[in-house]
Amino acid sequence: MHKSPERKVWSENYSEWFRKIIADIPVYDTRYPVKGTAVWTPFGFKIRKAVTQIMRDELEKTGHEEVLFPLLIPDYMLNKEGEHIKSFESEVFWVTHGGTTPLDVKLALRPTSETAIYPMFKLWISAYTDLPLKIFQIVNVFRYETKATRPMIRVREVSTFNEAHTAHATREEAEAQVAQGVEIYSRIFSRLKLPFAKSVRPDWDKFPGAVYSIAFDTILPDGKVLQMGTVHFLGQGFAKAFDIKFMKADGEYGYVWQNCYGISERLIAALLSIHGDDHGLVFPSSVAPVQVAIVPIVYKGKEEEVMKKCREVRDGLESKGIRAILDDRKELTPGNKYFTWEQRGAPVRVEIGPRDLEAGTVVLVRRDTLEKLVAKADTIYEEITKLFAAVDSNLEERSRAWMAERITQVNSLEEVRKKLDGQGGILEAPWCGSRECGEGLEVKVDARILGIPYNEGAEGELGKCINCDKKAEKRIRIARSY
Amino acid sequence: MHKSPERKVWSENYSEWFRKIIADIPVYDTRYPVKGTAVWTPFGFKIRKAVTQIMRDELEKTGHEEVLFPLLIPDYMLNKEGEHIKSFESEVFWVTHGGTTPLDVKLALRPTSETAIYPMFKLWISAYTDLPLKIFQIVNVFRYETKATRPMIRVREVSTFNEAHTAHATREEAEAQVAQGVEIYSRIFSRLKLPFAKSVRPDWDKFPGAVYSIAFDTILPDGKVLQMGTVHFLGQGFAKAFDIKFMKADGEYGYVWQNCYGISERLIAALLSIHGDDHGLVFPSSVAPVQVAIVPIVYKGKEEEVMKKCREVRDGLESKGIRAILDDRKELTPGNKYFTWEQRGAPVRVEIGPRDLEAGTVVLVRRDTLEKLVAKADTIYEEITKLFAAVDSNLEERSRAWMAERITQVNSLEEVRKKLDGQGGILEAPWCGSRECGEGLEVKVDARILGIPYNEGAEGELGKCINCDKKAEKRIRIARSY
Repeated sequence: MHKSPERKVWSENYSEWFRKIIADIPVYDTRYPVKGTAVWTPFGFKIRKAVTQIMRDELEKTGHEEVLFPLLIPDYMLNKEGEHIKSFESEVFWVTHGGTTPLDVKLALRPTSETAIYPMFKLWISAYTDLPLKIFQIVNVFRYETKATRPMIRVREVSTFNEAHTAHATREEAEAQVAQGVEIYSRIFSRLKLPFAKSVRPDWDKFPGAVYSIAFDTILPDGKVLQMGTVHFLGQGFAKAFDIKFMKADGEYGYVWQNCYGISERLIAALLSIHGDDHGLVFPSSVAPVQVAIVPIVYKGKEEEVMKKCREVRDGLESKGIRAILDDRKELTPGNKYFTWEQRGAPVRVEIGPRDLEAGTVVLVRRDTLEKLVAKADTIYEEITKLFAAVDSNLEERSRAWMAERITQVNSLEEVRKKLDGQGGILEAPWCGSRECGEGLEVKVDARILGIPYNEGAEGELGKCINCDKKAEKRIRIARSY
Repeated sequence: MHKSPERKVWSENYSEWFRKIIADIPVYDTRYPVKGTAVWTPFGFKIRKAVTQIMRDELEKTGHEEVLFPLLIPDYMLNKEGEHIKSFESEVFWVTHGGTTPLDVKLALRPTSETAIYPMFKLWISAYTDLPLKIFQIVNVFRYETKATRPMIRVREVSTFNEAHTAHATREEAEAQVAQGVEIYSRIFSRLKLPFAKSVRPDWDKFPGAVYSIAFDTILPDGKVLQMGTVHFLGQGFAKAFDIKFMKADGEYGYVWQNCYGISERLIAALLSIHGDDHGLVFPSSVAPVQVAIVPIVYKGKEEEVMKKCREVRDGLESKGIRAILDDRKELTPGNKYFTWEQRGAPVRVEIGPRDLEAGTVVLVRRDTLEKLVAKADTIYEEITKLFAAVDSNLEERSRAWMAERITQVNSLEEVRKKLDGQGGILEAPWCGSRECGEGLEVKVDARILGIPYNEGAEGELGKCINCDKKAEKRIRIARSY
């Protein structure tokens, strides 16, 4: 593996590192005068666009169609599924007035869209030929968070909620779709070079209204866990609450089986956080707003020659679909410009000076390692393409290795506490399987149970439950989390 | 000009035509249980995506950067500019509670985003080097409409509001940007083959807070006018209300000069309405969700051969970037399939049967005229490309001619009333220029004054004002409007 630039502030004071980088570039302006909301700046919006494009791409190629539902949900709709409303009622923003007129029916700002979408599913689905129905939308959702908010991670307006909703004729088809949902999300995270652990959330922490929930967690630089996405098997609970029935091939009627899965700008927070270092952001090539930054090294008398070559290189790269920028700001030194593009995470920097013109070369600097290489000017496209691949695979390896070091097997409460107070991460411990014991464990170690590993059998003999000493039946994951 | 298919229901009962087509395809489902809101279906979303892509493209290539602002605006911000709040206060939706907790500060659902964006402009702009600032966003906005709502045209949730906001150092630069805004919108409408008239709105109908407003109006099949977009010169009113100052090159401080321009899903309503006919929707090739629909004509014994050729044609077209679909639904006749793709406005239909296989031909049918032609199978891509161009230019000519016939010069109130009660459209009449007279005229003829033509001088002697008989100074446009 390659040597990284320093990651001291990044790891030792991650929260400050994150707040500073999003403000300095800027990416995401938290000074907007409503708590827990923020503005995506031009640079931030480009990141958001690249990430949402990957979401769209993976969902569309697996047969999900994009739609757009209204924001407002009438109170009587939000209330239809009992578990669901119980969980959300304390954190719903309510619209109560139009102008000075009190509304007859209170309208909720969607906290998530099951109760907006499923009344329409009832209208859209009448026979088995209408199934499966697979849709998604990318919208804002709202939660009246009473805990401290945190940029992109714990917000009152989630600006970028990608929610997919599917309906199926049988339980088997629905659960096969759950597995596909897990695969889709795995591909999205992999394209962003983000490592993750998949856990089946404990019963007491599943999505309200779901039969079970599978979550994707990652580990941020401070060792705390961030949930990046979730896939829920809804069974027939919502179908019954919203009366979504269909005629089967045999003429009988039945309720549909449903799933939903969601992902938000937390994914962007993970992208920025996990790949970063003390110089700023580091992007995989596919999502970097600027992929190549060209910095002219000008000396008196050679300005025009150098600038001409730089423009030529920029135009050549752009014509091949590379997002290249020529930093021709006159008032800044090359050093200032290196600072800018390292901070903004351009995967490759190109430096061109008078000596390069003579030698027919360019200097290429890759962002992830800051290593320099000299390349022939006429092979620049090929060299840059190779560097993109090198940066991408290094980010993938580096972030996977970093996370793997932070998933630890433990066998005592002592060890759990020590690890949690140390490097953090995810701890895997033997557990009896009882809810009571699990909830007790959460309190004892002041941490959260993430659940049991998804699709991994427990290996060999597990021994005793870490908390109650009964025979362990599962390996459970414990972490401090956002 | 080509002969069109029948447009009888389309013109004689436009409202019903529109409601039926958006429900039957479906494009936009108005059965969502909140008045004045609706769902963009998968097919509708594809139209919306193609149209917003054109907006983005034209704004980006003229230096506007996309951003995303929060939905909620604190009441004290919404109230800062006096004219603005006076106009909007009766139609703002208010969020008053988070869970069961009353909020300290009431939050408005943005009715438009000046008062959300300009507090941030104050933070972003400090010196002339920060100018011009040109941004846009595509978001939902909300109006508590008390009049009857109408799908896509008069709604409570505008789902697709494209609003640009610019700030400049001088009045001259700001007004030059107004002209560029007008050009950008002209190009967007032209790419959609939509005809329009540009009017400077009368003072009593300009955007609240603006110095002046330029509007783009078109005429719908029933002769009523639809405002599709507006460009506003804001002067320094908002800059003063929001204290947006900057340091000039000479070290002095001054307020910025601002513009904003907006466009919404009314544009999509116009696109669907203006090009349609009694068979359904008709799209220009660039925005058609399906550009080519391939219908196999199968006879017993030849099914596999025909289907193979159809798949080959589809794959060939797709590989060249054409959105082609092979309609292989087994239970339907070719006639059923023609109906589907005519209704959905695919610009070209391809029919392939056993005789075509023998002759090496395909049958091509263009949607706008329903004319058939037989082409050689091996030149299909070239033929389809030609047909796209033919459809596009025919739609442009046809819609322009149609609108031109409905812009009429009139010289008496009698004539105004007669025309308004007849084919409708836009009437141009001599006017004295007084607000009092203009507002009186609106009442007398039960219509709206759209304003004076933008960037057109009054030609020759205008004679007397149509309403008060004083000397006319301007030609004014009058219409019944949505």
